[in-house]
Amino acid sequence: MFKIPEHQVAGHQAKDGVLGPLIDDSGNFYKPLQNDERGSKEIAFYTSLSSDPRVPDNIRRYFPIFRGTKAINASDGSGLQPHLVLEDVVSSYQSPFVMDIKIGSRTWDPQASESYIEKCLKKDRESSSLTLGFRISGLKLVTSSKDASVWQPGRKFLQNLAANDAKLVLSRFVSSNVSSNDNIHPDRSFASKVFGGPSGILEQLLELKKWFEVQTIFHFYSCSVLMVYERESLMKGSSSSGALVKLVDFAHVADAKGAIDHNFLGGLCSLIKFISDVLEAPVENGFCNNYCSKDEH
Amino acid sequence: MFKIPEHQVAGHQAKDGVLGPLIDDSGNFYKPLQNDERGSKEIAFYTSLSSDPRVPDNIRRYFPIFRGTKAINASDGSGLQPHLVLEDVVSSYQSPFVMDIKIGSRTWDPQASESYIEKCLKKDRESSSLTLGFRISGLKLVTSSKDASVWQPGRKFLQNLAANDAKLVLSRFVSSNVSSNDNIHPDRSFASKVFGGPSGILEQLLELKKWFEVQTIFHFYSCSVLMVYERESLMKGSSSSGALVKLVDFAHVADAKGAIDHNFLGGLCSLIKFISDVLEAPVENGFCNNYCSKDEH
Repeated sequence: MFKIPEHQVAGHQAKDGVLGPLIDDSGNFYKPLQNDERGSKEIAFYTSLSSDPRVPDNIRRYFPIFRGTKAINASDGSGLQPHLVLEDVVSSYQSPFVMDIKIGSRTWDPQASESYIEKCLKKDRESSSLTLGFRISGLKLVTSSKDASVWQPGRKFLQNLAANDAKLVLSRFVSSNVSSNDNIHPDRSFASKVFGGPSGILEQLLELKKWFEVQTIFHFYSCSVLMVYERESLMKGSSSSGALVKLVDFAHVADAKGAIDHNFLGGLCSLIKFISDVLEAPVENGFCNNYCSKDEH
Repeated sequence: MFKIPEHQVAGHQAKDGVLGPLIDDSGNFYKPLQNDERGSKEIAFYTSLSSDPRVPDNIRRYFPIFRGTKAINASDGSGLQPHLVLEDVVSSYQSPFVMDIKIGSRTWDPQASESYIEKCLKKDRESSSLTLGFRISGLKLVTSSKDASVWQPGRKFLQNLAANDAKLVLSRFVSSNVSSNDNIHPDRSFASKVFGGPSGILEQLLELKKWFEVQTIFHFYSCSVLMVYERESLMKGSSSSGALVKLVDFAHVADAKGAIDHNFLGGLCSLIKFISDVLEAPVENGFCNNYCSKDEH
């Protein structure tokens, strides 16, 4: 009945034999409830989100639906354990391309413990969080549907991208010729269908940005933007990409105490700028002039 | 010929007998050139700003005009010392109200030395920088033009404001009844003339915000927004406030390396939200309902 999610790209993964999320055939995503403060914080967040009238409906749809908690057999064989029951946001996709981007140059709540702050600060400094305002936490791109080969760069590489490499990875995400071969320049064939258009990822991020400019309810530390689209249909010529943005991971959400979430907003604006650049880069002038790493010139 | 600037509200001050800025009668502001890296960084910034064609003209006016460097007798009696020669941005004001707000939740460049980072991080955590995305570095409000009494809150108080207190200070800044007496509710008489309107402070900050959403030239660590207006003319019923926004202090500007300045932008957006709230707060419902510290209820 419970399966290991095939399209999870970040976080603890059940396939490695550890405690990780599971899914079922009814579109549910079971996330193990961390038994420290993080678990209770995530439940508190989802509960507050569901009931807070200040969260507008157009914003609510950027969060996975919360269906309560349930004890199920955990993926690590430890028996019945409590899980959050969430909407499996990719359940309706045939062949989703998924990218998980942790937003904000600071992943720690000022109220956290000294040891936790120290750990996070070190990671923020060693990754692109500090420089770009975000870091890519996970990504899995199927490079060939025939043999199901994938391009899944290592965490170290992904998490510490320089600006040019971030543009390269975002470009590969929306290219028909995805490849880990640095000599193959991403064609960005699907940029306008995935990033662009009235229901594309850029418009969704801009809608979120508008809310973050005014909302003084939550501060989202260590929260991710998940970007998803339907790959195969685009490869077959469809014009509909199913481009989707969701916010995920709320174990470190804090009370905003009257100020906007300037840390999340800054990182979100930085991501928006990168995606706009990839979308608007003139193809006719040769992609590599502006958007490849230096070593590709 | 050289005088101590009367309206300087933050930074080292010559009036305390230390090395500090001086002004002359021709509208020049002489800032001692720090003889470590900071001095050369600030010159490099002004030079680059003057010559970089990517900086649009409408943005250039938010920076003080740079007139080179000059050796003058330093304020601490140490003889001829090199100074930056800048535009004295308040020289044309009769009775300026000035507020200096250091923008960004992080005041340190990731490339700085470990000891410098540690010092700044401590200060950011002990101030409102981390929570609000900015801290008020200085403020001097004349409460009575008759006896020239001023309200100049202590640094400790100013730099670690909670959200409600930040609104209170911003409200006092634009009130006719400025007072340090907590029982006197700021009337915000001048909010619409200073913060509002097509040439008010909010519009200027929004113009800067637009630029920060796209500029990938500079990262402005530890840089301040200076807000100025002409006080006496408003008190006498004039409709023109001379509301002015300037960016100052560029000793820690770094190369953007391809990403927007998400740290500055986030803090700027937070300040914009506070100023919008003070501007839009309904006076008829009683200011104190929403915008006073808890202890004033």
